[in-house]
Amino acid sequence: MSVENDTRAPWRERLRVIIFEADTPAGKAFDVGLLIAIVLSVSLVMIESVAPLRERHGFEIDVAEWAFTILFTIEYGLRLISVRRASRYAWSFFGVVDFLAIVPTYLSALVPGAESLLVIRGLRLLRIFRVFKLGRFLGEAGVLSRALMSSRHKITVFLGTVLILVTILGAAMYLIEGEENGFTSIPQSVYWAIVTMTTVGYGDLVPQTLAGKALASVVMVLGYSVIAVPTGIVTAEIVETAVGGRVSTRSCPECTSEGHEADARFCKDCGAPMA
Amino acid sequence: MSVENDTRAPWRERLRVIIFEADTPAGKAFDVGLLIAIVLSVSLVMIESVAPLRERHGFEIDVAEWAFTILFTIEYGLRLISVRRASRYAWSFFGVVDFLAIVPTYLSALVPGAESLLVIRGLRLLRIFRVFKLGRFLGEAGVLSRALMSSRHKITVFLGTVLILVTILGAAMYLIEGEENGFTSIPQSVYWAIVTMTTVGYGDLVPQTLAGKALASVVMVLGYSVIAVPTGIVTAEIVETAVGGRVSTRSCPECTSEGHEADARFCKDCGAPMA
Amino acid sequence: MSVENDTRAPWRERLRVIIFEADTPAGKAFDVGLLIAIVLSVSLVMIESVAPLRERHGFEIDVAEWAFTILFTIEYGLRLISVRRASRYAWSFFGVVDFLAIVPTYLSALVPGAESLLVIRGLRLLRIFRVFKLGRFLGEAGVLSRALMSSRHKITVFLGTVLILVTILGAAMYLIEGEENGFTSIPQSVYWAIVTMTTVGYGDLVPQTLAGKALASVVMVLGYSVIAVPTGIVTAEIVETAVGGRVSTRSCPECTSEGHEADARFCKDCGAPMA
Amino acid sequence: MSVENDTRAPWRERLRVIIFEADTPAGKAFDVGLLIAIVLSVSLVMIESVAPLRERHGFEIDVAEWAFTILFTIEYGLRLISVRRASRYAWSFFGVVDFLAIVPTYLSALVPGAESLLVIRGLRLLRIFRVFKLGRFLGEAGVLSRALMSSRHKITVFLGTVLILVTILGAAMYLIEGEENGFTSIPQSVYWAIVTMTTVGYGDLVPQTLAGKALASVVMVLGYSVIAVPTGIVTAEIVETAVGGRVSTRSCPECTSEGHEADARFCKDCGAPMA
Repeated sequence: MSVENDTRAPWRERLRVIIFEADTPAGKAFDVGLLIAIVLSVSLVMIESVAPLRERHGFEIDVAEWAFTILFTIEYGLRLISVRRASRYAWSFFGVVDFLAIVPTYLSALVPGAESLLVIRGLRLLRIFRVFKLGRFLGEAGVLSRALMSSRHKITVFLGTVLILVTILGAAMYLIEGEENGFTSIPQSVYWAIVTMTTVGYGDLVPQTLAGKALASVVMVLGYSVIAVPTGIVTAEIVETAVGGRVSTRSCPECTSEGHEADARFCKDCGAPMA
Repeated sequence: MSVENDTRAPWRERLRVIIFEADTPAGKAFDVGLLIAIVLSVSLVMIESVAPLRERHGFEIDVAEWAFTILFTIEYGLRLISVRRASRYAWSFFGVVDFLAIVPTYLSALVPGAESLLVIRGLRLLRIFRVFKLGRFLGEAGVLSRALMSSRHKITVFLGTVLILVTILGAAMYLIEGEENGFTSIPQSVYWAIVTMTTVGYGDLVPQTLAGKALASVVMVLGYSVIAVPTGIVTAEIVETAVGGRVSTRSCPECTSEGHEADARFCKDCGAPMA
Repeated sequence: MSVENDTRAPWRERLRVIIFEADTPAGKAFDVGLLIAIVLSVSLVMIESVAPLRERHGFEIDVAEWAFTILFTIEYGLRLISVRRASRYAWSFFGVVDFLAIVPTYLSALVPGAESLLVIRGLRLLRIFRVFKLGRFLGEAGVLSRALMSSRHKITVFLGTVLILVTILGAAMYLIEGEENGFTSIPQSVYWAIVTMTTVGYGDLVPQTLAGKALASVVMVLGYSVIAVPTGIVTAEIVETAVGGRVSTRSCPECTSEGHEADARFCKDCGAPMA
Repeated sequence: MSVENDTRAPWRERLRVIIFEADTPAGKAFDVGLLIAIVLSVSLVMIESVAPLRERHGFEIDVAEWAFTILFTIEYGLRLISVRRASRYAWSFFGVVDFLAIVPTYLSALVPGAESLLVIRGLRLLRIFRVFKLGRFLGEAGVLSRALMSSRHKITVFLGTVLILVTILGAAMYLIEGEENGFTSIPQSVYWAIVTMTTVGYGDLVPQTLAGKALASVVMVLGYSVIAVPTGIVTAEIVETAVGGRVSTRSCPECTSEGHEADARFCKDCGAPMA
């Protein structure tokens, strides 16, 4: 990143490198510390929701919660100060998440009935993704997200087909079983079809008639077979990405193009021998 | 598509292109509008089946339902008029679906006890597949359906084997657990075997004896392992389709070697230009 | 199959070809007829186990059952007569299955308390595998069973590891939850671990304590991830078999060896140019 | 293993080869015997936990348990004696497991309330992994564990993402369903999210409201699709390991081309013998 025509004070750029980058020792230490603070604060949110613990240790939880909120507020302020364009950061995805991580605590203190907003603090967990910049995980996450991104159209087609299937099968089940067997409406039956087709199978709603059980068997076998499709899509994508990675290790000495197969003897772009 | 010896009026051909094709802006707009109408009308069918909503908003639902029915009737008429051979369309898969999408509403108004036919309107959802012609989804759906088609014999063999297995295992379970533990007949036990082997596991019927639990464990581990087979089939097919598409279509005009990548400009074996 | 030094009458060899082979029109017709008879007779066994149907149509079921038994007895006799060595057939896998398909009906008529043996007739279903010789399914089944056979050691290692895991995790759960929460013994807990790890999840036995739920979560995530392993094994095997299939289409003009890659220019076994 | 500057008596080295190696007939027989003893002793631990069996056959179980404990104690002593550095073995993974396999029985005899420690004997099962050295399973286990090891970073990223997802989705479910529908705390809701996302679906905790069911459907479809990712990772890894092992190890001595199959005798590019 070029630092020319950067009118900010030099300490702000140094602060930005520590907070936003992970390459320097200070930046890495900051990320690790932030990771620990996030995990601890989310654990606190989870503990707070357990009624017996909240009643017994309410005061300690409140103190710790305010400590984390103040810590994250300072961090949020430092991010706003150190970044080049504060508004661009504030409206970015992580900027909004950082804001939502601190604002519910203040709101619950000011507005009387805002306690239910406290759950929003669970979004703090999303901030962990920022720390995935750390070390070697970046590359691995890159392979996975590239494979998912390049197969997103196939997966959309697949999920669309599944949604249409569960709606039609759910409606058929509503017709077969009827309201007396718990299939009280089509949305309810579609919910049953999703529970069955994804092989979750809660068992809170099960077919009672013979025809219903026969249709349920079809849905199950369908769901059991159809899961092969997204798996096949993603696997093919990962294999291809991996093979693509194996392909691209050589570059042409003449035109420096890449992407040659391992056994190519001539550059496929300019025809020069690969030597 | 050649338009010669087409005796229809030109406006009918223009109408056909709008309704049946998706390449022109008008055709695309028609498809998007149709997609929205289908989703809304199916949502309406689902809402209508929820008893409290039906009682409170019965009149509004009826009005909206008739509006959609008239809309789809007009669309059906336009399709019949614009297409070259009306009878061939009327008896095609989508022609029948289009017909089934409108006829239940008329029947329920004419025949008193035909309300249960209204669920057939859920088939409207099938019409969404027609809109999959839209944009890039066609290609993706093509890869998936080609992979499924070319592996259909393997999947038939697999499903046949699974069906034979669940029948034999279900009959064995009927012998082991018996009627006193809920396994009242072989079809019921086969249903249990399907529920277990597909890893759905409702829990409405579970083994009670030690021998039954041992056999159930075998069924579960079998189902858990055997799911690898359809996944393997479909994945291998998709990988092959993807690799085959990327590589083997071109041959060198000089040395006739094969296996060139799609973007190769020179033969990787003799260095001649690929032309 | 060489027919020399075959001392049987020629009609017995013709009979054998009809009954055991599927290449001739008569053999194919015999196989299709047998397939239908098997499916019908197994359906009959299933129907017979449904108490209301058995009470109402007991006589018709008995008549049909005896008809199928006599039919299969005649078929068994013809197989014994037509085959070259009757004893080798009688003790082969399908010979035993053919015998078990008819003997329970006779036994139930002779021995008073032998009704429970009737379920053994469900093994008739196994005879369907014999008909898989029909047409193109043979090749597809071959690919699948080859892939399964060549990955059987890997799958044994995998299943062994899973069995050791569920035993240790089940024992740990027995220690954590104890008898008061339904985990009454280690075998019972191991059963729970299998139900959970294979993602079946009946729900007849669920952890109640916090520690139990935490361990259960570990078992679930483990089972959810570990299923990737058999899938990966089988997929890799099928891909390899398929690629191997693509490889083997060329044979050396000099030494007729096979298994050459598509872009090989010289025979990899004798060094002659592949032309 | 070089035996020079080995100051131990020769019989100790011979003992070590029998106990720790599997190449000699005596070593193989020892391993098979040990495998049987482990399986029998673990079966005994399982049987002991079944209350009716323990009450009826308590004495026989105790006798057999002490027999196995003394057998394993002797084996442990022999291992300590025969190995070159006893302390290194004692603190190795299998050394600790071997120790934990015998110590609970002695403790339960000495300390009155130490019966619950007896479950630790279940760890004896881990010793089976040592016997996997036997024969051809070693290679197969090697392929699997190499594939798992080289994909461990990808799987860590995947599991981390899944954990973050279930926490956020669980917290959302706590907000939607609330304590009156059984979602009494965020940890409880996260447990539900894990049960649902891994498609286990016990059914002990199910959404009751419409919004809850809608969110549950999202979780299910997510879990159903997302399982494709670890499968894809492991499959790609196994395919790569298999293909890499089969092809890329040899190069032609004449033209130095690569990518020859393991059984090629002549270079597929220039026809020179591969020697």
